[in-house]
Amino acid sequence: MRASFILILCGVLLLPASAQQSDKSLAARVQRLEDIEEIRGVLIEYGRYLDARDFAGYSRLFAKDGEWVGGFGTVQGPAAIQAFMEKQITGPNRGTTFPILSNFRINVQGDTATAWSRWTFMTPGPDKKPAAAQAGRYDDTFVRENGHWKFKRRVASNDIPVPDPAPAK
Amino acid sequence: MRASFILILCGVLLLPASAQQSDKSLAARVQRLEDIEEIRGVLIEYGRYLDARDFAGYSRLFAKDGEWVGGFGTVQGPAAIQAFMEKQITGPNRGTTFPILSNFRINVQGDTATAWSRWTFMTPGPDKKPAAAQAGRYDDTFVRENGHWKFKRRVASNDIPVPDPAPAK
Amino acid sequence: MRASFILILCGVLLLPASAQQSDKSLAARVQRLEDIEEIRGVLIEYGRYLDARDFAGYSRLFAKDGEWVGGFGTVQGPAAIQAFMEKQITGPNRGTTFPILSNFRINVQGDTATAWSRWTFMTPGPDKKPAAAQAGRYDDTFVRENGHWKFKRRVASNDIPVPDPAPAK
Repeated sequence: MRASFILILCGVLLLPASAQQSDKSLAARVQRLEDIEEIRGVLIEYGRYLDARDFAGYSRLFAKDGEWVGGFGTVQGPAAIQAFMEKQITGPNRGTTFPILSNFRINVQGDTATAWSRWTFMTPGPDKKPAAAQAGRYDDTFVRENGHWKFKRRVASNDIPVPDPAPAK
Repeated sequence: MRASFILILCGVLLLPASAQQSDKSLAARVQRLEDIEEIRGVLIEYGRYLDARDFAGYSRLFAKDGEWVGGFGTVQGPAAIQAFMEKQITGPNRGTTFPILSNFRINVQGDTATAWSRWTFMTPGPDKKPAAAQAGRYDDTFVRENGHWKFKRRVASNDIPVPDPAPAK
Repeated sequence: MRASFILILCGVLLLPASAQQSDKSLAARVQRLEDIEEIRGVLIEYGRYLDARDFAGYSRLFAKDGEWVGGFGTVQGPAAIQAFMEKQITGPNRGTTFPILSNFRINVQGDTATAWSRWTFMTPGPDKKPAAAQAGRYDDTFVRENGHWKFKRRVASNDIPVPDPAPAK
């Protein structure tokens, strides 16, 4: 009887162990989906802060050493990014311009991630109706910092108007 | 030996309890992701019903006391919303116009949720090619009603053309 | 004492069983969310391969017997789709044109799925700024093939410019 008892106990002990195992891997899968969702949110918030000319909020989407790279130049760190953008883009958003943010492709690997997306910048056209003034891509790397996803590096590229070829050096 | 036996049993009983605990919180996290996904679906279906001029389907996206607020006015409840939209927007969608729905920001808190998104209304332009006629935002609150997410309040605002300032009173 | 012992053991055995049960259904729910996320990725990759004129990569998004149906005609199977697209769309993407891919509606049922979405094809306009040249819909069916989601059938339809009515027969 003792033997069968031990067998039962072994079985009992095995079951919760496997349940915890699948729990853990399931938790990791849920975490990945949550990470994608949070990054999707950061991509959108970037646009909302830009629309509102809230460059303090905008800069907090970047990691401590996060970089913005684009047509204006390259700038690193939230404080520098805020000061830089406030200098580049002044005054309120009277045109109520905004980017259509689309085509999100997000890949998460543990505590880092990459994202690729499209932006189409809408402004009032000559007839006052919405007209796309510029369009391009974002190539992003993300890092999890203090439990939240932040831009490690955002590279904003222009596709239309087609950029002039770089001058020969 | 009895003591060690009890210890083993305690251990055995403890494991499933913690497994169930993490199960419950994991289930809540999965529910939240499903809720976001369902709400994303409602935001899209709204556009599809509008494209099809199916205001019966459109009105069922609203809660019993759900409100639509926009340039046409304010209207409450699915039956009133259906009648109102059928009066405002008549005939088939010959221009095969549609909104680009983008920049979704969804936050779920239990059985209520908020959403913010962008719409860019595409119509045939003077050259017959697609042209954005208007663009703006949706500010939504959602409620879970009979197990499904419904608009509690949808506020449609215009950004481009830039609305005229409200007249002084 | 033996009886109470057996009762305790029964309780112990029951708990992991129910935990495994909920684990299984939770796993199915997580799988569905992952499926939606992967399909979302395929919808985006389609656009990226098109942008890059990489019709080898593009064709691998289709199932072995996957079909593309659109204005150019109908073509089946990755090899045929690659050859067909390379003939229809030649040379590099000098205009750096791209589609805004939006309004994704994805429904997963086990190993098949349907998707509906919007495309708005952006090209340099007469003023070099981005202009929508065409816009329409995708009606897709998907199949899980070797563990990955592939187009079973993609039907690309045009909405703007409004297509001419089909000639009377």
